[in-house]
Amino acid sequence: MANAAILVIGNEILSGRTQDANVAYLGKELAARGITLSEVRIVRDDQPAIVAALDALRTSHTYVFTSGGIGPTHDDITSAAIARAFGVPLERNPEAVRRLQSRYGDGELNAARLKMAEIPVGAQLVDNPVSQAPGFRMANVFVMAGVPSILRAMFEGIRHTLAEGPPHLSRSVTLAVREGDLAEGLTRIQDRHPEVEVGSYPSFTEGRSLVTIVARGTDAGRLDGVMAETRVLAAELGAALAEG
Amino acid sequence: MANAAILVIGNEILSGRTQDANVAYLGKELAARGITLSEVRIVRDDQPAIVAALDALRTSHTYVFTSGGIGPTHDDITSAAIARAFGVPLERNPEAVRRLQSRYGDGELNAARLKMAEIPVGAQLVDNPVSQAPGFRMANVFVMAGVPSILRAMFEGIRHTLAEGPPHLSRSVTLAVREGDLAEGLTRIQDRHPEVEVGSYPSFTEGRSLVTIVARGTDAGRLDGVMAETRVLAAELGAALAEG
Repeated sequence: MANAAILVIGNEILSGRTQDANVAYLGKELAARGITLSEVRIVRDDQPAIVAALDALRTSHTYVFTSGGIGPTHDDITSAAIARAFGVPLERNPEAVRRLQSRYGDGELNAARLKMAEIPVGAQLVDNPVSQAPGFRMANVFVMAGVPSILRAMFEGIRHTLAEGPPHLSRSVTLAVREGDLAEGLTRIQDRHPEVEVGSYPSFTEGRSLVTIVARGTDAGRLDGVMAETRVLAAELGAALAEG
Repeated sequence: MANAAILVIGNEILSGRTQDANVAYLGKELAARGITLSEVRIVRDDQPAIVAALDALRTSHTYVFTSGGIGPTHDDITSAAIARAFGVPLERNPEAVRRLQSRYGDGELNAARLKMAEIPVGAQLVDNPVSQAPGFRMANVFVMAGVPSILRAMFEGIRHTLAEGPPHLSRSVTLAVREGDLAEGLTRIQDRHPEVEVGSYPSFTEGRSLVTIVARGTDAGRLDGVMAETRVLAAELGAALAEG
């Protein structure tokens, strides 16, 4: 079974200024391909922090996806950190330069933009149909932009290259019940279906306690079975179905 | 200077089903107290993964804040993982039981709910004014609920206990310019102000390239200086101010 990690690089996420949107997107995309997203790390724009996180993740996961830090400004240090982690130099990649030339006129392709063509030796480029400046793949690490529209376009171009397993399916139902009233019955359902991952997520809306029960796994029939048993449990508890 | 890490525990975040909202909240709150949020990890509901991440983070940061996994259901395994990481047993905490009794009648305080009173030996409780089931502090680790409204209420009760430094301030301006046109001038501004963290964040709205320049630091005058120089740079480039 393939698994994956995401390494988000960016002070703007850690300061709370920017709400990350890439983890949820990649989590869904990977699940659809049967790849378990096992871990996410978010680190600052700091080379030792990036290198340490990357080395830990790339040796323990089938794939690592990074987001952020491959633009033209001084705070974009991801490519240099990846090169450092792999012990290779950066080189001005001729194909990356060609792609930038397709977007920028001669007067526009300044030193800052050419920095986006500095790619670790041995990497393969990842297409960027939005703004041309490529991402790259180095061994099992895919290096992508942080801007969500660009990350998505890059991922769409690489996802066919990933190992594919049975898609992770899910079913859910939301019940008007307090989680503690449901917990014991839900444990019995989980125990009867060890191959299904049963999750319980409480929420509070307008003073009303809701619980969403999510069943995840690769066998639709088993997920439907868990949902059916959950509805029986809800009926026994007199809990109304809020959704699902 | 105090720093911090967040450990988010929950399959629902990694599956992409739930969008995390706690990192951005805590990032802002910590910055306001002068505490640098250095790293975030998101791991699955898996005891070895939780223990490994916790041990790495708690030995390298002033504070660790965890979110998620302290409810009454079978998938709530955070308290047991924290106890394991610290090498102490769980105990039924009398004060936690008392708080649960204040919310639940005798017939309601079932085994599942009493699980929420199983706290590692030596921990101090963290108040939960929303639903009573407490979080706890163990050494430099604060264990909180994942439901955002409860996490926020818990954090409001503990933030006065944290070390306080000069608040991290920020200033920002959004310019209608392409990042690569701004990059070289921005590097010069950063070089003139090494004590300010200058970040550049591109976005694309309706085919228009925008860049938000953010200056972060503890000295308001210096941040204002960076903003003034950024506006001069924008004027030199003929870039309109979109915001700020």
